[in-house]
Amino acid sequence: MSWQLRASDLPDLARGATLLGTGGGGDPYIGRMLAERVLGDRAITVLDPDDLADEAFVIPTAQMGAPTVMVEKIPAGTEPTLALRTLEEHLGRKADATMPIECGGINSMIPLIVAAETGLPVVDADGMGRAFPELYMETFAVYGVHGSPLAIAGERGERVVIDTGDDDRQMEWLARGITIRLGGVAHIAEYAMTGAEVKRTAVPRTLSMALSLGRSMRLAREEHRSPFDAIALTLAGTQYAHVRELFVGKVTDVERRTTDGFAKGRAVISGTGDGEDFEIEFQNENLIARRGGEVVAIVPDLVCVVDHESAEPITTEGLRYGQRVRVLGISTPEMMRTPEALEAFGPSSFGLKEDFAPVEGAAVALRP
Amino acid sequence: MSWQLRASDLPDLARGATLLGTGGGGDPYIGRMLAERVLGDRAITVLDPDDLADEAFVIPTAQMGAPTVMVEKIPAGTEPTLALRTLEEHLGRKADATMPIECGGINSMIPLIVAAETGLPVVDADGMGRAFPELYMETFAVYGVHGSPLAIAGERGERVVIDTGDDDRQMEWLARGITIRLGGVAHIAEYAMTGAEVKRTAVPRTLSMALSLGRSMRLAREEHRSPFDAIALTLAGTQYAHVRELFVGKVTDVERRTTDGFAKGRAVISGTGDGEDFEIEFQNENLIARRGGEVVAIVPDLVCVVDHESAEPITTEGLRYGQRVRVLGISTPEMMRTPEALEAFGPSSFGLKEDFAPVEGAAVALRP
Repeated sequence: MSWQLRASDLPDLARGATLLGTGGGGDPYIGRMLAERVLGDRAITVLDPDDLADEAFVIPTAQMGAPTVMVEKIPAGTEPTLALRTLEEHLGRKADATMPIECGGINSMIPLIVAAETGLPVVDADGMGRAFPELYMETFAVYGVHGSPLAIAGERGERVVIDTGDDDRQMEWLARGITIRLGGVAHIAEYAMTGAEVKRTAVPRTLSMALSLGRSMRLAREEHRSPFDAIALTLAGTQYAHVRELFVGKVTDVERRTTDGFAKGRAVISGTGDGEDFEIEFQNENLIARRGGEVVAIVPDLVCVVDHESAEPITTEGLRYGQRVRVLGISTPEMMRTPEALEAFGPSSFGLKEDFAPVEGAAVALRP
Repeated sequence: MSWQLRASDLPDLARGATLLGTGGGGDPYIGRMLAERVLGDRAITVLDPDDLADEAFVIPTAQMGAPTVMVEKIPAGTEPTLALRTLEEHLGRKADATMPIECGGINSMIPLIVAAETGLPVVDADGMGRAFPELYMETFAVYGVHGSPLAIAGERGERVVIDTGDDDRQMEWLARGITIRLGGVAHIAEYAMTGAEVKRTAVPRTLSMALSLGRSMRLAREEHRSPFDAIALTLAGTQYAHVRELFVGKVTDVERRTTDGFAKGRAVISGTGDGEDFEIEFQNENLIARRGGEVVAIVPDLVCVVDHESAEPITTEGLRYGQRVRVLGISTPEMMRTPEALEAFGPSSFGLKEDFAPVEGAAVALRP
């Protein structure tokens, strides 16, 4: 069902999107501020995929760059719409709607800014069902819609169009080169597609999911109920059905470097009891979690580090020594676990040697 | 006067273009081979700027990258025309002619390949009057024609369009990033302009100049006359009127590194007599020559290292220990010595502290 989104929804949406960001995707705080400013009293139509005409033309919009840079380099706010307009001009066709390519983190907000500026609706779907660091890691690409041509806009009005045909990895490689030279953050429009293609290739209703998650966590806190129960109840029966508490402890080590346009590193979390250590490796997003050396969750399943009491999600760039945290493992939608999907964004895409194993097969169920 | 260029002209043109390349611009050998293959028995029309209609539409074409990579990464040959077609498509306007952006080195050849493939004429002019390492170092830009939009084509059919408005340095910065990610060499179309703009901003008749230089050197060798006299006689009375022999000696040291997409370094040449050393610094092209620490020639004047007997020009990537060489200083055209020109490609553009001083004010005149 399509619905109207208002500025008052943005804090909840941001919270849920940060959880789905699985440590990456950029802190949506800045995006939320920009969206609130542009939105004002107006409403945005969030279009259910079922309500999208097959022949409608959808141009997704996003920010790309290292989250460590995103928090320091505030966009002017006009770049995402400039990227959309540049791609429209290049293709000679106007968009009927925009859409996220990534529902986790700041990229849940960027299409809202475009929608508020242009009056276009936003499709309630995305191509990652979470956040991933690279542009070819999209269900769109996995199921046959390619990212090219891609338009990039910079804060000084720079406009770049990249066309690598069917080669989405080469598209990512070239777009990343431009993004680095634009200072580490840029705004893009890519994966232009029809309504029929959205229905076939996108992860559906992920904006709604982020908003539901964020809202249920807030309400639980206000009503002094467990926000962890609220997360489990919200996800039960959805495409993210399985939630596991993987570890409880204190952050005792964080290594983080911004390299090749990404934030890469690892975090160690130490338990209070048996002294067994828990380790997470990340590239923008959390990729793999090991407990005492044993893998307990691995990409594309979601590994989410959250505050041990409030369940407020913590991004990889927000990890600090001494934080008391819980780590949640959440099962990714089934369309993201197929062999062709795992080839695009499974463990081997990140240079990990481990095979994918569903999080619901390991660890202990979230209490109660 | 317009004229017809044939494959048999290419060896002479390549030799002259290497001399005008002032150490850089890439060895035209590979470009010459590609041009010969495409040209076959046909002729290319080389259009004198005077014969170009004011309203004609000209799209220059070129290769960009580090010369050290150019000699190792052979292009497929179709990329320069793909770059031209990409820019035509982007602008919605067909070119009436192509033109070099740089008459020195391989970029004297690239527009010939395009001309042979498309049947377009090549304008007898360029924007450097020699070779320079960066795309904003153009008389076009100095006199008000900007490089954007620029199209890049890669060997796997990648196509990129970059538009930075009037900011030609940002255009260079972004295009260089793409070129590095395409493996160090790419082909471009940029500085699209009208015939009237060509007449106002281009260095005229530089293809003719390269061909005359190469031909006169060859004839002198065949007739056992001095090729150095031939160079001086060919240039006398032209916009490159002043030729100075700056040093004779043996290459005793070469430092060279490929960094940030450029070949940077220095060469030391030692004399046989008083032991005074001669040093050249280069960034793709030779930038400054010092004799005993005193500057004797500086960019944008031409510093050319040639074989001490045959006068065959030696590129910066061709410099080797033990070579016996002469170093020539050649005055650059006056339109390249104006204050606005020196701002774009004078010594300070290359981080040199020295001011520009005309080569004809220093050193000893070339014998006789």
